[in-house]
Amino acid sequence: MTKVAILGATGYTALELLNILARHPQADVVALTTRQSGNPSVTDIHPSLTGLYDLSCENLDHAEVGQRADVVFCTLPHTASMEAIPQLLNSGCRVIDLSADYRLNDPGVYEEWYGHVHTDPTRLSSTVYGLPELFRDRIGDAELVANPGCYTSTSILGLAPLLANGYIEPDGIIIDAKSGVSGAGRAPKLGTLFAECNESVTAYSIGNHRHTPEIEQVLSEVAGLSVSVAFNPHLMPMDRGILCSMYPRLKTSTSVDHLLEVCREFYRGQPFVRVVEHIPATKHVIHTNYCDISVRMNRDQLVVFSATDNLIKGAAGVAVQNYNLMLGLDEQTGLA
Amino acid sequence: MTKVAILGATGYTALELLNILARHPQADVVALTTRQSGNPSVTDIHPSLTGLYDLSCENLDHAEVGQRADVVFCTLPHTASMEAIPQLLNSGCRVIDLSADYRLNDPGVYEEWYGHVHTDPTRLSSTVYGLPELFRDRIGDAELVANPGCYTSTSILGLAPLLANGYIEPDGIIIDAKSGVSGAGRAPKLGTLFAECNESVTAYSIGNHRHTPEIEQVLSEVAGLSVSVAFNPHLMPMDRGILCSMYPRLKTSTSVDHLLEVCREFYRGQPFVRVVEHIPATKHVIHTNYCDISVRMNRDQLVVFSATDNLIKGAAGVAVQNYNLMLGLDEQTGLA
Amino acid sequence: MTKVAILGATGYTALELLNILARHPQADVVALTTRQSGNPSVTDIHPSLTGLYDLSCENLDHAEVGQRADVVFCTLPHTASMEAIPQLLNSGCRVIDLSADYRLNDPGVYEEWYGHVHTDPTRLSSTVYGLPELFRDRIGDAELVANPGCYTSTSILGLAPLLANGYIEPDGIIIDAKSGVSGAGRAPKLGTLFAECNESVTAYSIGNHRHTPEIEQVLSEVAGLSVSVAFNPHLMPMDRGILCSMYPRLKTSTSVDHLLEVCREFYRGQPFVRVVEHIPATKHVIHTNYCDISVRMNRDQLVVFSATDNLIKGAAGVAVQNYNLMLGLDEQTGLA
Amino acid sequence: MTKVAILGATGYTALELLNILARHPQADVVALTTRQSGNPSVTDIHPSLTGLYDLSCENLDHAEVGQRADVVFCTLPHTASMEAIPQLLNSGCRVIDLSADYRLNDPGVYEEWYGHVHTDPTRLSSTVYGLPELFRDRIGDAELVANPGCYTSTSILGLAPLLANGYIEPDGIIIDAKSGVSGAGRAPKLGTLFAECNESVTAYSIGNHRHTPEIEQVLSEVAGLSVSVAFNPHLMPMDRGILCSMYPRLKTSTSVDHLLEVCREFYRGQPFVRVVEHIPATKHVIHTNYCDISVRMNRDQLVVFSATDNLIKGAAGVAVQNYNLMLGLDEQTGLA
Repeated sequence: MTKVAILGATGYTALELLNILARHPQADVVALTTRQSGNPSVTDIHPSLTGLYDLSCENLDHAEVGQRADVVFCTLPHTASMEAIPQLLNSGCRVIDLSADYRLNDPGVYEEWYGHVHTDPTRLSSTVYGLPELFRDRIGDAELVANPGCYTSTSILGLAPLLANGYIEPDGIIIDAKSGVSGAGRAPKLGTLFAECNESVTAYSIGNHRHTPEIEQVLSEVAGLSVSVAFNPHLMPMDRGILCSMYPRLKTSTSVDHLLEVCREFYRGQPFVRVVEHIPATKHVIHTNYCDISVRMNRDQLVVFSATDNLIKGAAGVAVQNYNLMLGLDEQTGLA
Repeated sequence: MTKVAILGATGYTALELLNILARHPQADVVALTTRQSGNPSVTDIHPSLTGLYDLSCENLDHAEVGQRADVVFCTLPHTASMEAIPQLLNSGCRVIDLSADYRLNDPGVYEEWYGHVHTDPTRLSSTVYGLPELFRDRIGDAELVANPGCYTSTSILGLAPLLANGYIEPDGIIIDAKSGVSGAGRAPKLGTLFAECNESVTAYSIGNHRHTPEIEQVLSEVAGLSVSVAFNPHLMPMDRGILCSMYPRLKTSTSVDHLLEVCREFYRGQPFVRVVEHIPATKHVIHTNYCDISVRMNRDQLVVFSATDNLIKGAAGVAVQNYNLMLGLDEQTGLA
Repeated sequence: MTKVAILGATGYTALELLNILARHPQADVVALTTRQSGNPSVTDIHPSLTGLYDLSCENLDHAEVGQRADVVFCTLPHTASMEAIPQLLNSGCRVIDLSADYRLNDPGVYEEWYGHVHTDPTRLSSTVYGLPELFRDRIGDAELVANPGCYTSTSILGLAPLLANGYIEPDGIIIDAKSGVSGAGRAPKLGTLFAECNESVTAYSIGNHRHTPEIEQVLSEVAGLSVSVAFNPHLMPMDRGILCSMYPRLKTSTSVDHLLEVCREFYRGQPFVRVVEHIPATKHVIHTNYCDISVRMNRDQLVVFSATDNLIKGAAGVAVQNYNLMLGLDEQTGLA
Repeated sequence: MTKVAILGATGYTALELLNILARHPQADVVALTTRQSGNPSVTDIHPSLTGLYDLSCENLDHAEVGQRADVVFCTLPHTASMEAIPQLLNSGCRVIDLSADYRLNDPGVYEEWYGHVHTDPTRLSSTVYGLPELFRDRIGDAELVANPGCYTSTSILGLAPLLANGYIEPDGIIIDAKSGVSGAGRAPKLGTLFAECNESVTAYSIGNHRHTPEIEQVLSEVAGLSVSVAFNPHLMPMDRGILCSMYPRLKTSTSVDHLLEVCREFYRGQPFVRVVEHIPATKHVIHTNYCDISVRMNRDQLVVFSATDNLIKGAAGVAVQNYNLMLGLDEQTGLA
């Protein structure tokens, strides 16, 4: 049984991880950390876990975590992650980092978008990007896996088949992304209060959302040439779920049926991507690890739809996919 | 005091009209119609109106409506409207039609998108399109005003300043539109049940939504050349409100500040359009007759945002704007 | 592997059953029925099941179902169930009935509350009531199990420990019950449209809700004397979840701690009831088979709280609990 | 034109006041205060007010407010109010206090429930309680009006007719109250985040909610004898609206029709109370100043329902009712 720790156990992603790991036959959660004092019981923090865990959230130092655990899920905020992870790796742990700190290859790009100098820059180029549908072969032996962002993997999974096969222009792809509020985290903020978000739809971070360079980096690798996107995130009055409506320019005229077949072929054998004929709805994928994808023609304009649960396929679920691959388990363990 | 009738009084648009007219000093509601039998009290149909109206919803023929009322708001479904309206006009009423039957100039386009032969085609070219911000001068003397669709006016108001002034390319404008569920009407359908829509976001009618030709017709008139759009409506888990996120191609590079100034200038003196610097949110406009507009640059991609309450500025509110103009009243009467 | 059929496969309860059974190692779903024509694929009816099932919903007669399946989950409406079930039992199937038809022992009470003469009255007294926490011993050998109503089991589980141990008066127990909209089913009705339910709370069926006699029958058996309740259901703007806030009269003064201990003792060893110290919230139990229970004193008034997911512990989850017990499996199979 | 100030202009109640006052012909808003620095524009704080106000929120001292304004709406938190109000009164302003500081007559009761010594105790007994339906005659000449709590007025208005006429027992009245999230204010807290409240129903503050003594004080005055309640507030996943489901004990058997008539008689001529035959729903009253009331018998148990918009009839609307009465205006000015 592999010993598992979760750093930053009070957030929504950690809750989702704990839900999945409670059903996972090959994971023994041995440590949960928090900066809160008093070692609160995890069921005081997350009452829905009552009966599933008898653990405290402790203010542990990284050495102690490293001693207890074999694999660490790090759900700390960015900058906190890159401080913790070198120590965890040094102590022999394998790490799945759910922050943004190790997703970008280039420390200059990191600094540009995150406003911080990267303190562990040499590790960036060697870190595996944990999107199994594209990089499964690299994940098994990795010591450190950078778990993708939620908007990121939803966008990438929808566009990758068409870019890899050269059906769409690589520049200026418009992504209109719609996310539930849990994506904004569990720290109290005015903008995520119920009475602010409910009965409202708006956009935010137009032109400066940090998932932009991550989407471009990965899609450029998929396409073999430089890809650029205009990423436009919107906040939806719902708990969870992302729908990306994406508007690339087709290179040459083709049919919806053909493009669906290209997508199906691209994802053949992938257990968690469903290429569907209907238009995806977030309701069909929430509380699952699926990404649903479809395409439509709106007169001459191609529309690519992609939907996930931001907390599962967009965070905790793909993290467990990576965990399974790192341990040589069936990729679907605990997730089906 | 002008005598007013509402045809089709059981729907959400009629409820909103009744709410507005209850505060309107120059409107006396004298007839409400329904196809339901038994002459139900309007407060049984809409309990929120208790104390505001003491009226029944009656299964009246059009002649009877014509005798009672001076002005008729027609909220019947399309095809039912074009059957009723010639009779109402013949009996001397002035009519504000909230259906789609008289919005399109060309009966061929109507037949193509609505799947019905238009039975009153000669009136189409002479009907006034009731978007006061663009066509105010035509409305005052009109006998019949075609009230715009909700998606339509939201989209048009956002794009008109930039098209009229030649800042954007007229073809292939991508509109990603997000609407609350009340836009789908009050007839029970699986797709608008609470447990289907709540906690879900999806798209629908991609490529065949009937507001498409209406948007194009009006914008083409504004631009003085043929405009085409790719209109992509999405259903949001909220009661009311529309946000259009629109992605036109800029003709030449310019600044957000300049474009905001172009919009402000275009709408100077218009009481119900607010050009704002923040990104519009539906929450800021619901339960009002405002349309909020702003623009952003997402790297090289222009984004135009436009938000309304689909039941007010998108339906009942603009209908009362038209009513006020038709009667020579202050346009804001009952709406401020 | 046991062969399983679901009658009435298009509703929310059937969807939830299919979700659970997809993870169940000892259930092979072999038949799904609907009255819809055209044998629609179950994934057209429930797109979220894509990839999990490759089955059609067929308009099968009961004999055909009986030939294919060993165990039948019947999610038909009441009256349709009592027509189908005798035939299914005759053909050798074991049946878990999720309708109300076999819950009440007395055909006269059935007729009084449901307005129909019971057509299979002799079977009523011998049918097992499928609430495992109270009647586990009877379920294993049953040919027919009447699955409890959602409000019913939530109310009963909260009150049973205090009635069985004589802490509260048995008459006039006030139950203020709050349910998500999925409890009203998937048939399109005005009252369950999104724009009617959202942003609204109201009560309904005060004094005549059909779960009343069921609650009283079971609690009377638990208490050993006649129990009466005033059951007041309310509709909440959420998909799923029930919270019952119950106001019984304490017989003698005692402490919250003591009553919590009474509840814990009563449910010792029951895997799906959690006696908690915090006030239950529906969010803590939705998407699980748990029932959370707690008590509070509000000055002299005892308040008992009980929360479930109406579709799982209130319907499909407890049905699978019953299924497991009928097959001699671990009660938690597929549910943990 | 009366000059009006609002203390604490950043909250939801202040926003609602500003919405109402924008349509009020006899109120000129001259000062808005906040403890935020930088004198933010009120439209930056509340973007929905764009075009309605051109004012800053200033960090003013009370003397300055007193110089500018004739009437002050104080929406400060409790304890801050009782610090500000003596100074405002001394400077000659009339004050409508929306906090709890002047609602209770007895400083000992205040201290017991609020945990603070009252610093202005002598004024308590002379402050007018601003519930016009019960105390209209006292309001016109008042210098200081204590605006009722939202739960409070909803509960009181439902029970007052039956207590005043002796139909129900005065002790142990069970109130099961259900409120939208805006009632918890606009300060960021974990418990009012969207992803905590949405898709959830729970209870809170059982036995210690501070509206309890206020309800009892007013109802005792109405009944002429000591009234006690068990007040049980619940949080609903919606923006606004309160439904109180109340369970008093009937003294003698009577009919629903008779009790409805008693209520109608009690509220005859009151413009903002509607005694209705259907069960009230919060959707029927939100965005209005109405309180809807009805009664039902659930077998032997009387149920009284009462519904309001917590921000309007429960706060800003009744405050403007009081304002109108204080100025000798039609009570409905700005509210109809």
